[in-house]
Formats: sequence, structure tokens, C-alpha cells
Amino acid sequence: MSSSVSPLAPKDVPDMPAIAGVRLATAQAGIRYKGRTDVLLALFDEGTTAAGVFTKSKCPSAPVEWCRTNLKSGKARALVVNSGNANAFTGRTGREACKFTAQIASRAAKVKPGEIFLASTGVIGEPLNAQAFDGVMDGLVADAEPGRFLDAAKAIMTTDTFLKVATATAKIGTTKVTLAGIAKGAGMIAPDMATMLSFVFTDAAIAPPALQAMLKDGVANTFNAVTIDGDTSTSDTLMLFATGKAGNPRIARAADPKLKAFKKALDAVLANLSEQVARDGEGARKLVEITVEGAASNASARRIAMSIANSPLVKTAIAGEDANWGRVVMAVGKAGEPADRDRLSIWFGGIRVAHKGARDPSYDEAKVSEKMKEQVIPLKVALGMGKGRDRVLTCDLTKEYVAINGDYRS
Amino acid sequence: MSSSVSPLAPKDVPDMPAIAGVRLATAQAGIRYKGRTDVLLALFDEGTTAAGVFTKSKCPSAPVEWCRTNLKSGKARALVVNSGNANAFTGRTGREACKFTAQIASRAAKVKPGEIFLASTGVIGEPLNAQAFDGVMDGLVADAEPGRFLDAAKAIMTTDTFLKVATATAKIGTTKVTLAGIAKGAGMIAPDMATMLSFVFTDAAIAPPALQAMLKDGVANTFNAVTIDGDTSTSDTLMLFATGKAGNPRIARAADPKLKAFKKALDAVLANLSEQVARDGEGARKLVEITVEGAASNASARRIAMSIANSPLVKTAIAGEDANWGRVVMAVGKAGEPADRDRLSIWFGGIRVAHKGARDPSYDEAKVSEKMKEQVIPLKVALGMGKGRDRVLTCDLTKEYVAINGDYRS
Repeated sequence: MSSSVSPLAPKDVPDMPAIAGVRLATAQAGIRYKGRTDVLLALFDEGTTAAGVFTKSKCPSAPVEWCRTNLKSGKARALVVNSGNANAFTGRTGREACKFTAQIASRAAKVKPGEIFLASTGVIGEPLNAQAFDGVMDGLVADAEPGRFLDAAKAIMTTDTFLKVATATAKIGTTKVTLAGIAKGAGMIAPDMATMLSFVFTDAAIAPPALQAMLKDGVANTFNAVTIDGDTSTSDTLMLFATGKAGNPRIARAADPKLKAFKKALDAVLANLSEQVARDGEGARKLVEITVEGAASNASARRIAMSIANSPLVKTAIAGEDANWGRVVMAVGKAGEPADRDRLSIWFGGIRVAHKGARDPSYDEAKVSEKMKEQVIPLKVALGMGKGRDRVLTCDLTKEYVAINGDYRS
Repeated sequence: MSSSVSPLAPKDVPDMPAIAGVRLATAQAGIRYKGRTDVLLALFDEGTTAAGVFTKSKCPSAPVEWCRTNLKSGKARALVVNSGNANAFTGRTGREACKFTAQIASRAAKVKPGEIFLASTGVIGEPLNAQAFDGVMDGLVADAEPGRFLDAAKAIMTTDTFLKVATATAKIGTTKVTLAGIAKGAGMIAPDMATMLSFVFTDAAIAPPALQAMLKDGVANTFNAVTIDGDTSTSDTLMLFATGKAGNPRIARAADPKLKAFKKALDAVLANLSEQVARDGEGARKLVEITVEGAASNASARRIAMSIANSPLVKTAIAGEDANWGRVVMAVGKAGEPADRDRLSIWFGGIRVAHKGARDPSYDEAKVSEKMKEQVIPLKVALGMGKGRDRVLTCDLTKEYVAINGDYRS
């Protein structure tokens, strides 16, 4: 946890409701940090279903592989998350640490290891001492209570400067259901490895395939549309747990019209959490909302938006409050997608600065400069090629990013 | 031109030979800079052949389009390069500026506009005032002399901190031929747009298709294997001019065995110039040589090497002199290429720090720390998947990079 909170942090933390069937507890296992919680245990009532999406890295962490295996049953009874050590690139010992952690939790919570999910965030390549969980697990099980989402969000933080929670409600038929989610950002454990972790809990009754389909769909325009530095973690994990305690008749298919409002609420929670991740990008001083329209397809718009969002030159220009559309042209050009320089228009803060392949003759530099001083910078590109559209979030690239990630490893 | 020279600058500037059939002159046209040269004219004797490779950007600059068109004839009589303005994203006025520049040069040098090549580097999106060339072109033609490569290299600099030249000789049959090249780096005109420009000149007699084939082949493992920040310029230009004045019987095909020594000399010049570009990356304090071996194919090795070379987390770690192999694992994983965490080994400065999916138990942190203090950092990754191999050059990512590119546009 950093000492200074990001200027982009949300002003208010929402009141987080309890989710029937979910109990939470945190503890200090001393994995790496001193004087703060670093383990989260979530216990789920019987009948809880689970869905998950994970890093596309070809070198995933041991817990990611563990979760992928256990997800096949679609059932969940517990989740154990630690900060301080990512248990990534730890080879056989990493797999054994997962197995051992699940054994400890299984014994304490009296649930099957195959229904326990694991996530770790923190330093990479160092063996995770799962023994540390042995001393705290019985206490965690005893302490677990509903609604402790703020504590949960705190325990999983690494270089995050603020805790990230979000909630929403919806109706499935006539039954009110509630969602609550936590996340930690794409910050790196000083001075090591990034991880984005997020867990969403609901009391809705939804079968695993429907849950998985909705999560996969929901992530596309939320977590997958956020980039801090283009560096994909070995550990990115987003899971959704549904306890069924709200009492709605269990829904089998994602396409069921009764899920419409739930889907909207889920998307809102994912959008909220993922925006908070962008707002807490390392060293971030500005949130950048990049919209690409008129692309050959939505997929093409995504690739162009990501090319802009990951360009160090665009990001440093925004840090410098410079509406440097020339660099945006560069980033469009390098994306390799259909584009025609002479049809390109670019807006910063809603002001068109370039039009049809040249500087917009009517653009007022002073007005744009004012816009660039704000905390949220909308950046729009119109390609004039087709109807493809996309939106991604990123942050600026500041000297603080380099300082955070360039210090000697302690 | 920056006030402080990169610590990675070569210690010596080579003596640059004259190339028979090439005359050079520079002048102050006042395009953007004051008190320094900003135009280069190269004149070529009749019979000079040309080859070129250009940016793959979908939004190329007007001079890049101009050169692509003129290259079809394979003949060259003149080259005009300016710094201070990239004539990129300037629409119709940009195309007209090219035409006008060529007209001015055509009139002064008495050569056809279709045999004149153009390159511009500097600010993007601002109209290039080609009128400025009118006042200096007659003087340039009158002043043009053989061998003025140092002046030529100086006139095309933007944020480069040192001038970049290289030379080599070879034999074609019994004839000695000479090559001389200049380059400017992937630095950005403070605070605008990047451009990599390089021009190589030789007195060898080689037909355009053979010249083009050799250049295309040579660039793959030299200029295309260098990255500063992954941001592809709209203006990248590398051209090769062959005057034929050495007197060797003209070679028609690139595969002709008589070209073997020439090809080697050309590759050496390209490798030398492109390494100088990496050594002068903005804010660079370390040159990083990334070798990937044991990949599924050479192409796969290139993509993995580039994923490492463009990772902000790897680059900031190297700036912090931290042998952070966890970030290397991350960059391998995100490349999307065949890789198996448990077969991966990683070396920094020749010392193996990770082996078969885990930290190398025998690695001595103190020894590695010593290596990380050096100016040139070799970073090797062995994948154990196949026989694919590649090598790319990059530099570290420092706060100075952000400062150079994040300042307000003046």
C-alpha cells in the first residue's frame, strides 16, 4: 500500500451489503508485509456456483492453474487469497504450496479441496510459504462473517493506493438479488510483479454455465478494456460466486430473459471495479478514456484503441497535459488496422484538434490546454472506415511510474 | 540536439571516406531550429541505383509516400532531407510540399523530380514550409562535395545526442567498393514525433532489384531488431544508393556469389548504425541486448524478444539495475507464443538467475547486481521449445524518457 492516495480515487466508498451465503475473514499471516492483513478467506454455503476468467499468459501462476482445474465442477465452498507473494514461476514447489494451502483450508472449513479456489498476488519467483496459513486458518474460519468486504478489499491490496469495492442490485423475476465485488489493481508489488485480482459475490441462484457465459461476456468491455502499461500479469484472476440464497428459481441459461437485469448489474459492478483499477494505475495522475469509432469492425476499433492506450508517447504527452494528436496518429498507424490518414479526425476533451488528415484549422490551443489540465481526459478518434466502435480506459505515464517500478529490489 | 550526450555514445567517430559519385552539402533553412543546419542535399552521378524500406505505419508521412512512388524506377539523382518538421499528417499541403521541394531541387540540380528522394523528420501535423528550401538550394548544389558525411549526419539530427555514421569496405570480384552510412535516432523532436532515418551510400554497381533485396534482408536483423519504446514512426526511412563508380561489372541478382562480401559489409554498416540508434534512445542509460533461444521458430523468438524489449516493467527494472527475471517471465507469457514455464531459463549478464520454471538456487544476487551496474546488459532467455533464435536491442526506460516526452509542447 502506497502512502499517498491516487488523486483519481473515487470520493466515496459505497456501503457494502452482506451477501447471504458469503462469510469473510482476514488475517495477518506475515507472508511478506508487517502490520497489515495479507490473507482473505471467503466461505460459501453449500450450493454456491462459480465462474472465472484468468490471465491469457502462457506462463500462468500456480493458483491460476489450480483455479482452472477446480472450476470444471462449477462448485465453490471457499476462496483463499493472499497478498505479498504471487506464487508465480515457482515450479513444483508452487503447485505443492497450492495443494498444501487447500489442505489447510479444507481441514479448517470442512470442505473438499476441489471446491476451494486460490489466488495469490505479490512478488514473483519466490517460494510461497504456505505453512504460514496453518497458523491463521482456524481463526479465519471462526471469525468469518457476512459483509466484511472493506476488510476483504484491504487484505488483497499490494501497491494499490485505495481499496476497491462496488455493489449493485437487480431483480430476477420478482426476487431481489445483490452483488458485491472487490478488486486490486494492476499495481506491482514494489518492486515486483503485477496482478489484477477481482472477486464478485452474489446471492442469486444461477447455474455454472450461465454464470461463466455472463462473466466472460462482461469482462470483454470492462477488465479487458483497461490497460495500465500493456504488461499482462501471470496471475490475473476474476471470479464470480453465486450462493443462490436470494431464493430465485435457479437459472440455467445465460440467454434466459429473466437474467437481463442481473446481467446489467453485473456489468455495472465489473465496469466500476475495472475503472477503479485504471484510476489506481501506478503513478497515474490522469484517467484517459479512449473512444475509437468508424473502424472497420469492433475488433479493429479495440486493437487501435489499445495501440493508443499502450503507447508510451501518447501516455507521456497526456502526463505533460499536451494534446499531442501527432502521437495519436502514430499509434493509429502502428496498430496495423485499416486506417486512412486523410479520413482521420481526433478530439481531446471534446475539442476536435485534427480533421481529415490535417490539423483542424479552427482549433483553439488555449481551450484544449484547459481541458488537458483536468483529471479525466476523453480522447476520441474517428476513422471514417466503417461502423466499428470501442472504448478503453488507461492512465498517463509519469515519472512516478518509473520510480515505482525502477527502484532497486529490496 | 540535446545538451548532454548519451553515456552509451560510441567513444570514437570513424574517419568517413568519400564515396565516388556522391556529393553532399548542408544548410540552415530555418525550418524550426535556429543556429544549426537543418537541410541535407545529396547529389548522385548518373547511373545511381536506389533501394528503400519504409515505415509499416498505415498513416505514413508525405515524403514516405513520395519515395515509395519514385523508387519504382530504381534510379536516383538527389536526396533532400530536412529536420525540424516531419511533413506528416499534413494532408494535401503535405503532398504539395513534397512536389514543391522536388521542383526546387530539380531546377537547381538539373535532375528530374522523379529521381529525387525526400525525407523529413521533426514536428508532426504542422505544414512544412517548402518555400524555405528555395533560398538555400542553389547554394547547396554549388557547395556539394564528396565525403561530408559528418556534416550530413549532423543536419538530420533531432533529439539525438550524438551523430551516427558508419563505414565499411568489401570486394566485388577484384574491385574494392566502399560503403558509408548515416542515421538519426528514434528520438522525438522535443516534444513531438519520432523518426528513424538512415541513408547508406556505396560506389558499387548493383542493379535496383538486387539492391532492394539485400536492403530488405539486411534490415530484418538490424533496424527491425531495435526498439526504443515500441512506437512506430510515421516517417521511418532507410535508403541505399549505389553509384556504380567503383567500376565493378554491374551485378544483377542479389543471389550472385560475387555480392557475398558486399552483403556482409552492408549488414555490418546497418548493424552498426542501428545499434547507435538504440544507444541514443531517449533517456537511455543502458543498452540491453536480448537473446531468445530455443523458441518454436525464429519468428516466435522475435515476437518474444520484442515482447521483452517493449515491456515497460522490464525496462524500468533495468533502469533500476534490478535483475528482475519475474518481469521477464511475464513478458514471455504475454507474447502469446509457445512457451512452457517449467522449461524456461533466464540469464542476466551471463549469470543464470532462473532455471526450469523456478529461481536458480545457485544464483548469487551480489554477482548479478554487479553485472546490472554495467552499461551493456545482456539478457538471455532459453525456452526449451525448439531451435528458434533471435536477438534484439533496446534501452532502459528512465525518468528522463518521461521528462523528454512529457513536457509541454512549446
